[in-house]
Amino acid sequence: MQTQGRQRATLPDEFALIARLVADLPHRRRTILGPGDDCAIVARGASSILFTIDSMVEGVHFKLGWGTPEQLGARALAVNLSDVAAMGGVPTACVVNLAIRPGLTRRFFDRLYGGLRRAARAEAVDIVGGNITSARQMAITIALLGDAPARPLRRDRARAGDEIFVTGTLGDAALGWRILAGQKRVRSSARRHLVSRYLAPTARLLAGQRLARLRPAPAAIDLSDGLLQDLGHLLERSGVGAEVDATSIPLSTAYREVAGPDLSLALGGGEDYELLFCIRPGHSQAKLARWLRVPTHRIGAIVGRPGLQLRGAVRPRVGGWDQLRAQG
Amino acid sequence: MQTQGRQRATLPDEFALIARLVADLPHRRRTILGPGDDCAIVARGASSILFTIDSMVEGVHFKLGWGTPEQLGARALAVNLSDVAAMGGVPTACVVNLAIRPGLTRRFFDRLYGGLRRAARAEAVDIVGGNITSARQMAITIALLGDAPARPLRRDRARAGDEIFVTGTLGDAALGWRILAGQKRVRSSARRHLVSRYLAPTARLLAGQRLARLRPAPAAIDLSDGLLQDLGHLLERSGVGAEVDATSIPLSTAYREVAGPDLSLALGGGEDYELLFCIRPGHSQAKLARWLRVPTHRIGAIVGRPGLQLRGAVRPRVGGWDQLRAQG
Repeated sequence: MQTQGRQRATLPDEFALIARLVADLPHRRRTILGPGDDCAIVARGASSILFTIDSMVEGVHFKLGWGTPEQLGARALAVNLSDVAAMGGVPTACVVNLAIRPGLTRRFFDRLYGGLRRAARAEAVDIVGGNITSARQMAITIALLGDAPARPLRRDRARAGDEIFVTGTLGDAALGWRILAGQKRVRSSARRHLVSRYLAPTARLLAGQRLARLRPAPAAIDLSDGLLQDLGHLLERSGVGAEVDATSIPLSTAYREVAGPDLSLALGGGEDYELLFCIRPGHSQAKLARWLRVPTHRIGAIVGRPGLQLRGAVRPRVGGWDQLRAQG
Repeated sequence: MQTQGRQRATLPDEFALIARLVADLPHRRRTILGPGDDCAIVARGASSILFTIDSMVEGVHFKLGWGTPEQLGARALAVNLSDVAAMGGVPTACVVNLAIRPGLTRRFFDRLYGGLRRAARAEAVDIVGGNITSARQMAITIALLGDAPARPLRRDRARAGDEIFVTGTLGDAALGWRILAGQKRVRSSARRHLVSRYLAPTARLLAGQRLARLRPAPAAIDLSDGLLQDLGHLLERSGVGAEVDATSIPLSTAYREVAGPDLSLALGGGEDYELLFCIRPGHSQAKLARWLRVPTHRIGAIVGRPGLQLRGAVRPRVGGWDQLRAQG
């Protein structure tokens, strides 16, 4: 997302920072998968636990006037649920850290909690603990546990020949964000759709859980930073490359109506919280969509040669793209 | 701590907020203990998991110039470890959310991570994941998992007749904080001790684990908000009262040297990260200390009548005190 992108430019690279955080740490046998995927996998008896943390900061990820407090609470959980979805897991319990600032009312928190509780209940997630601190910016940080499937969807499992699919449509949330931020003026029903896709994302839990039943287990990642960047992470972790057909990227009617042929936000906008997964060829797109209960589109294929080749698109005005292409 | 106290005065009550967060949430059978204790307890197969989250915010809990980046990283973990210690658990794995602001260097983060990693390694805790966001204030939020003992130390298990003990000495960290904040001028070796007690607290993990072997399981809480406030939480959860002998509260030589007979910070200062526990009478203070491998002092007893009676002290200048006494 643009705001984040601008802010990130002045900050050390996130990925490098996380890598350094865990460098030279001798993981015990209980850590099946450490940082670098959507969730960590921690062994616990005969089965394993998924463990993830995510944060939303006022002025960085949201402004209070953009949506309702209920939406804000629900969204804070949804971005975590999406990480569990991307592993094929079942979310179970979360703890919530709330940074609160002066000027926010009790009524605001009641509504925020109401939205969070409703979202948790809808996915049978228990809110088991919380912590509150004061700060200058409001922030919600949620750590979520999940039950891992027998064969979790991992970023490092893509193989040459796999076909790449994404759920839903891409770029809507990023466009919605620009509308909310006043960067785009849209006077139509498209506005409602796009803004809602930003304010109220849906974690693809059922799709992830069903994908985890396939053999071999698909590689997967959730699309939070934008298609090119997230696919880039998956390619890097798997040590492979990809060819993506830009004309196959699923766009909503609203997106087309507002952005026309400009794919920038579909390719690099972020905040979609859709799943990208890589499976052995031969699956019908229509059958997959029915089985996963979400529109699903094939957008390309995994190749052995590292790098990401984007075909059929005008050069998008997205920061991450040249870098990815340069690897090819 | 004073800064927090001042800020909290303008904010909704933390306890009430957490209670509302989970109000009317139908916890599934997997949640053995929800919010209101040091950790949540989540059932997982035959055993259970401890789950907690804590956050340190720049300008609220620390200033960057006060200690080394290594100390900051280690302290962020220690305050979480202390929650696991207060349940008698064994910490296992954590995820770290870092809010970073412009102006912090890569060298700073390397040192911060170095301290965090060293602290994790010392307790065999795996750092399994991380997330980084930008913000105006730096903040470290850590969610920690632990293995629960068969009989966890809970806040709601105090019974009339129990004797109340605390580990270590109280008030040092709060005094250290005031020295660092420039509110106290101390030119002596006492300064080093007090400041170090604030910057580098030690979670009483071994003591907690040993206490969890006692039958019946002691009630316990870690002292993060100050003796009177934390004991008040425990009394409230257990539905009992307490008589505390102020002259028995363990004070360090440095504390006495700087604060003289003023018990305010020992009673209400916070940030001690010592354990308070309540056990059946008859334990020798000296034997307990040897067994728990930390100085341990009896400070009072649990009584059936609600409220906290403080004996042998001049009236402390601490906000929470009158309120607690008023319950008696």
